Amino acid sequence: MQKILIIGGVAAGLKAAAKARRCDPNAIITVVEKGDMISYGACGMPYYIAGDVDSITDLMKTSAGAIRNRDFFKNVKNIEVLANTLATNIDRKGKKVTVKNLEDGKESFLLYDKLVIATGAFPIKPDLPGIELANIYQLWHPNDAKAIRQGLEGQRFNKAVIIGAGLVGMEMAEALKQWELDVTIIEMKDQIFPAFLDQEFARLAAKHVQESGITILTGEKVKGFSGEPMVTAVETEQRSIPADLVILAMGARPNVELARSAGLAIGTTGGILVDEYLRTNDPDIYAGGDCVENVNMLTREKVFAPMGSTANKHGRIIGENLCGGAAKFRGVLNTVVVKVLDINVGKTGINETDAKRLGYEYITVVTAGYDKPHYMPDAKLMSVKLIVDAKTRKVLGMQAVGEGDVSKRVDAVATALVFGGTIDDLFDIDLSYAPPYNSPIDNVAVAASAVMNKLAGRFKGISSIEAAEKMENGNTVFLDVRTPEECKKIRLPGQEDMKFIPLAELRKRMSELNKDDEIVAFCKISLRGYEAAGILEGVGFKDVKVLEGGIFSWPYVCEE
Amino acid sequence: MQKILIIGGVAAGLKAAAKARRCDPNAIITVVEKGDMISYGACGMPYYIAGDVDSITDLMKTSAGAIRNRDFFKNVKNIEVLANTLATNIDRKGKKVTVKNLEDGKESFLLYDKLVIATGAFPIKPDLPGIELANIYQLWHPNDAKAIRQGLEGQRFNKAVIIGAGLVGMEMAEALKQWELDVTIIEMKDQIFPAFLDQEFARLAAKHVQESGITILTGEKVKGFSGEPMVTAVETEQRSIPADLVILAMGARPNVELARSAGLAIGTTGGILVDEYLRTNDPDIYAGGDCVENVNMLTREKVFAPMGSTANKHGRIIGENLCGGAAKFRGVLNTVVVKVLDINVGKTGINETDAKRLGYEYITVVTAGYDKPHYMPDAKLMSVKLIVDAKTRKVLGMQAVGEGDVSKRVDAVATALVFGGTIDDLFDIDLSYAPPYNSPIDNVAVAASAVMNKLAGRFKGISSIEAAEKMENGNTVFLDVRTPEECKKIRLPGQEDMKFIPLAELRKRMSELNKDDEIVAFCKISLRGYEAAGILEGVGFKDVKVLEGGIFSWPYVCEE
Repeated sequence: MQKILIIGGVAAGLKAAAKARRCDPNAIITVVEKGDMISYGACGMPYYIAGDVDSITDLMKTSAGAIRNRDFFKNVKNIEVLANTLATNIDRKGKKVTVKNLEDGKESFLLYDKLVIATGAFPIKPDLPGIELANIYQLWHPNDAKAIRQGLEGQRFNKAVIIGAGLVGMEMAEALKQWELDVTIIEMKDQIFPAFLDQEFARLAAKHVQESGITILTGEKVKGFSGEPMVTAVETEQRSIPADLVILAMGARPNVELARSAGLAIGTTGGILVDEYLRTNDPDIYAGGDCVENVNMLTREKVFAPMGSTANKHGRIIGENLCGGAAKFRGVLNTVVVKVLDINVGKTGINETDAKRLGYEYITVVTAGYDKPHYMPDAKLMSVKLIVDAKTRKVLGMQAVGEGDVSKRVDAVATALVFGGTIDDLFDIDLSYAPPYNSPIDNVAVAASAVMNKLAGRFKGISSIEAAEKMENGNTVFLDVRTPEECKKIRLPGQEDMKFIPLAELRKRMSELNKDDEIVAFCKISLRGYEAAGILEGVGFKDVKVLEGGIFSWPYVCEE
Repeated sequence: MQKILIIGGVAAGLKAAAKARRCDPNAIITVVEKGDMISYGACGMPYYIAGDVDSITDLMKTSAGAIRNRDFFKNVKNIEVLANTLATNIDRKGKKVTVKNLEDGKESFLLYDKLVIATGAFPIKPDLPGIELANIYQLWHPNDAKAIRQGLEGQRFNKAVIIGAGLVGMEMAEALKQWELDVTIIEMKDQIFPAFLDQEFARLAAKHVQESGITILTGEKVKGFSGEPMVTAVETEQRSIPADLVILAMGARPNVELARSAGLAIGTTGGILVDEYLRTNDPDIYAGGDCVENVNMLTREKVFAPMGSTANKHGRIIGENLCGGAAKFRGVLNTVVVKVLDINVGKTGINETDAKRLGYEYITVVTAGYDKPHYMPDAKLMSVKLIVDAKTRKVLGMQAVGEGDVSKRVDAVATALVFGGTIDDLFDIDLSYAPPYNSPIDNVAVAASAVMNKLAGRFKGISSIEAAEKMENGNTVFLDVRTPEECKKIRLPGQEDMKFIPLAELRKRMSELNKDDEIVAFCKISLRGYEAAGILEGVGFKDVKVLEGGIFSWPYVCEE
């Protein structure tokens, strides 16, 4: 009977244990976990804090309502779980792990035939003055979540400052806004979601989020915290921001010290180096979850990509391989989706910044549209950006932002990416169609089609970034082809460079435009802008471009 | 300047016209349409009838609110649209089409260089006694929809009978139920959605739909209609069903008479035969939309698959090819999604019935689960069925039913099908993950994983159909491993063959079971059933199967 020892009892570790049990009913399987809670849905903590989830123990239940505690794993899966137990040393020669009982401080050791390291990640906590003040939290352990929720229920918080505009930070902004707190997010980098969104899509997402009353401060660095014993303000290089609740959401680092001191190889991104079987450089030691380095299956780049979905895949693969299997992990696509109040943000594959850095000869397109037929009462807009290899037509990545159903479109593109799909493939997918779900030409097909037109020279799109530069220079005519009623409500800035001709009047009024001018046509989503360009080009206009994604995708301030 | 003539002005025809205009600014493009309305979103009619859409003209508007009428096409796209104009003859030699103005009855002819046939389909109307009575409608033209809506607003209808349980019939059931009518659906075949769902999933969907108060009568044939002048009852071979509103939703046939009399080839399914460029056997005549025959891209079978999404793809491809392009249509996957009140039903690829007929060596699996983490307040259950080629591991098709987000999962699988993906590919997709959208192991990955386990001999699943047969025979022990509280609420039928042992007690109480018995383990979704099988197999039970999809996916009557 082989002895399987697993260090870490949250996602990857327990999944590996369960899978191993399934493959080998006789193995002795032990899991050590340093915390007092095991197998909790850590990603659910913002929703517990928001009040959507009643109790923190709901995050530890199975879908049938059983609590995944020590007894559960013993009774159901015959897996021994030792909580409050810290692994302090791995003796690879002797194949034993020293563990310390955190309740009584006693040390002992556990023997293994196969070892799994699933030590996860730890949150970054900078050494800033005042960082230990009360009511400054890191959302890492369920105990943090419980403390925050208690404070909210006791109405002890009014002004929250979140440091870091990544996934956790933005999810916490939503959670705290639901309690009607004043919420300010401070991000050191010059955009939100700096790890995955391109600049203009980050600005677009930020614009939407700010409309719901959340304050976002980018390019601002925190110097420290004031107050005693409780935090009263966050001090940045620019100002002092009153706060009675602070959330540190500055990202995470893989927890690799145990592996490193055992002489296991660490990758360039700081995660434990594993092969495609998720084996470390010791053939009897596997590693998975947030502590390992992943590979982007598209670019083959090494990446640190902590994700609950990936951790679960790792667990399944390790479980099989512990019992003689040869399952392989193919890698990640750095797919992300996140909800911030009414706004959905998603991304898969690489973004434009990556494409540039990696030297791809790429083109991009931004399209906007409703996520179902506009006549359906719950139709919502969203912007989609595709990044495509201009030579091979292969899709490299996609980003989407808006109130529309983003996650569905991200998943379709993520699926195509696994197969190295082209934009032609994307257009060809026989996606499901019915009015409650999407339009006959789905947003994914619209974006693919726009790239096809662009590559064929039939669509001369211009990004919002380029358009803003041209606006600055003042040599370009911006042609707004919306109706006067629409133009009254909201407009691009720079009234003096704007020409307003509704699309239906364009054929009659084109003498108002100069055939040699550089013209940028647009409308709300630039579908009419595209029509306008077609009309003008058809009669010999030399240089008509279309503002991609229209006013809806304009990431800068508009006039109202 | 080439003359492009298009017969049919709803979806494919106008899309082809618009695309051709884009590719060739100088072509003379004319569209003839026999009806008085052009370019309407026919799929939106049930939602207009339901009251979700205010006005029928909303279905003819662009997303910016402009009505796509004759003026719109003239002013914006420089396309001439002749409504109320019927094409009566095609003279292929003379390259001219005879058309009849339906308002004044005058005939004339139009010359073409390239012709497009987009004559759509027509609804089946059987020659039954009383079929012309008042208040019997076919939901085909917006005028039908307007008449039905007016009757509903005037409270003139109380009892509706829908004949045909396909897409339109079921969407109409939802629409009429929203007006609180008594709704009965009569289907001649022995299941709902006979064109695309396997029997047990059809029963499952029907069970859900019936729970919302809609009556479904399958295997029942309509003989005629009573009443004078207004319908008062539908007469079937079994009974007389009172009705003051009848909807005929018995499917459609491609409208090919014009093409046939012009000597164009008609395919085996009755649609116009086209090549991959959507060209008929006359190189100057293209055809697209509901009047043509499609190819299933997976099986290469010819199929009649009228779909708004396909018609739009056809239009784009034809438009390109009219102007010298060589765009190809790859085919369809017979993807379908439909909403019936709270229930979502979807399908892509082939179903089990097809797989059997086509001689595939296939296996199937049914899994059930929440569409997001169970702790999220809006998590909903759904059942997924995968059909997989057992030799190549390629996915052949998928069906899904439930309140959960079905369309997203159908789209991911449809995307994988375009690439000939295997279950291993499905598992590997880096699908987006966040609690508002899905679980860390998405329903698609769960289903793929179950097939992997089944092929590896680790999961001995049994379908509900097989289980029901075994229940009938009485030689099998059915092991319900849910908690007593759950068992009190709902149970599988046949109390005497049932053994109730909660999963957490199974290791202690397994002496109550016989190692040589055939045992079928299950729970609500059979995740615990799967655990139970693992426990029992681990200690030497010989024949433990798992009821796939659990009680939630049980298509027959349960005990309450």
